Amino acid sequence: MTLKLYYAPGACSFVPHTLLESAGADYEPVLVKIHKGENYGAEYKALNPRAQVPVLVDGGQVVTQIVAIVGYIDARFPEQGFLPREPLAQARVMETLAWMNNTVHPTFTHIFMPHKYSDSAAVQGELRSYNTQLYRGLLAELQGLLDAAQRAGRPYLGGAQFGPLDAYSLTLLRWGSLAGIDPQDYGPLWAFVQRLAQLPPVARVIERERLQLNLYKAA
Amino acid sequence: MTLKLYYAPGACSFVPHTLLESAGADYEPVLVKIHKGENYGAEYKALNPRAQVPVLVDGGQVVTQIVAIVGYIDARFPEQGFLPREPLAQARVMETLAWMNNTVHPTFTHIFMPHKYSDSAAVQGELRSYNTQLYRGLLAELQGLLDAAQRAGRPYLGGAQFGPLDAYSLTLLRWGSLAGIDPQDYGPLWAFVQRLAQLPPVARVIERERLQLNLYKAA
Ligand SMILES: N[C@@H](CCC(=O)N[C@@H](CS)C(=O)NCC(=O)O)C(=O)O
Ligand SMILES: N[C@@H](CCC(=O)N[C@@H](CS)C(=O)NCC(=O)O)C(=O)O
Repeated sequence: MTLKLYYAPGACSFVPHTLLESAGADYEPVLVKIHKGENYGAEYKALNPRAQVPVLVDGGQVVTQIVAIVGYIDARFPEQGFLPREPLAQARVMETLAWMNNTVHPTFTHIFMPHKYSDSAAVQGELRSYNTQLYRGLLAELQGLLDAAQRAGRPYLGGAQFGPLDAYSLTLLRWGSLAGIDPQDYGPLWAFVQRLAQLPPVARVIERERLQLNLYKAA
Repeated sequence: MTLKLYYAPGACSFVPHTLLESAGADYEPVLVKIHKGENYGAEYKALNPRAQVPVLVDGGQVVTQIVAIVGYIDARFPEQGFLPREPLAQARVMETLAWMNNTVHPTFTHIFMPHKYSDSAAVQGELRSYNTQLYRGLLAELQGLLDAAQRAGRPYLGGAQFGPLDAYSLTLLRWGSLAGIDPQDYGPLWAFVQRLAQLPPVARVIERERLQLNLYKAA
């Protein structure tokens, strides 16, 4: 098999995972046990020295970083329309993808892996709580982007087709639920994500990754 | 004039600024006084609610986020070869651009604007010092990418042409010098950045932004 995707259940690798599945790609999903530190093993670090998922391998070629992998999958499966072709429309999708990737996602990392930013336990605790508040605000902003898409009659965040923004939004809302944020606080976004989860390719990835969509436990 | 770039001197807007200048674009550079909080004013927030530079305006259309702006400029000035056309080569450039944008750049933000991650002065101080160490490691990684490019005979980080990776690397090394990191600790990278600074379009942007390339002061 020429295409391989290294993924971890529930991680951001869900984004390329659902795109490959939607495209009906002939690919091998390779599970990386991040919770067991497999990504820090010599074998994985030979593949990706930054020790993270996702990694896409095409033949002998290794591509890392969601933004780059999304572009590469789009180029390999152009008929899927994962990204709009028209430059301005494409820039609109890329600006939201970049924001999810450089702002929303790292804000969650401050909650889930605060040791990436400080080796002090006290600082880590403070980062966790402060960034949980920020994360709530970012989910509200994401809700606003969805509202705008729906007002414009777009069935998906990026346009007429399922694409990277949709997959990422599911992941980000699910992460919020893990951080104690009730997805029902973002009603239309939560309804949208539940609908996404029922798209057959998305449902297959959810099953393969054994994901629960809502991890929120009321206090 | 149809193209406008909102920039702040020395900020990450340097990346699209140098691309537009290199392309010989007919554009209006609009200075945003971030140090005076102009980006938080009502007028600017009507343009970009996230209150940041860069913003590219093309006619009535607003594009934010470096990654999206770079793609848009590349599509508008395809003859410049800012991004490779071949999908794998383009993915290689995009993965480094994304890493600079989602990892190196935010690590500097922890040093320069730690209040973005915590409202506690003590935590901010700890973030500053811990992330300065991380930043040193990331500059070493950037140095490694340059070494690899040079071993492969590529005159620029992304290939045969000046492009976004080069402009970003200048910015990131300059930011390091502001954070007390001596650029001379990264000899070949520092030599490369000094050469970039002499490219006529880059030199014009440096003059317009009134930048000093090395802000390091020995203790
Ligand atoms: N900037 C990377 C981020 C990738 C990332 O954050 N991966 C996480 C999972 S969501 C990971 O592998 N974490 C394991 C670790 O860092 O120890 C990208 O956009 O692909
Ligand atoms: N994710 C944004 C980051 C932009 C950014 O960090 N801009 C900084 C200058 S380098 C800014 O405007 N800071 C002002 C502020 O946040 O108050 C992008 O990639 O364009």
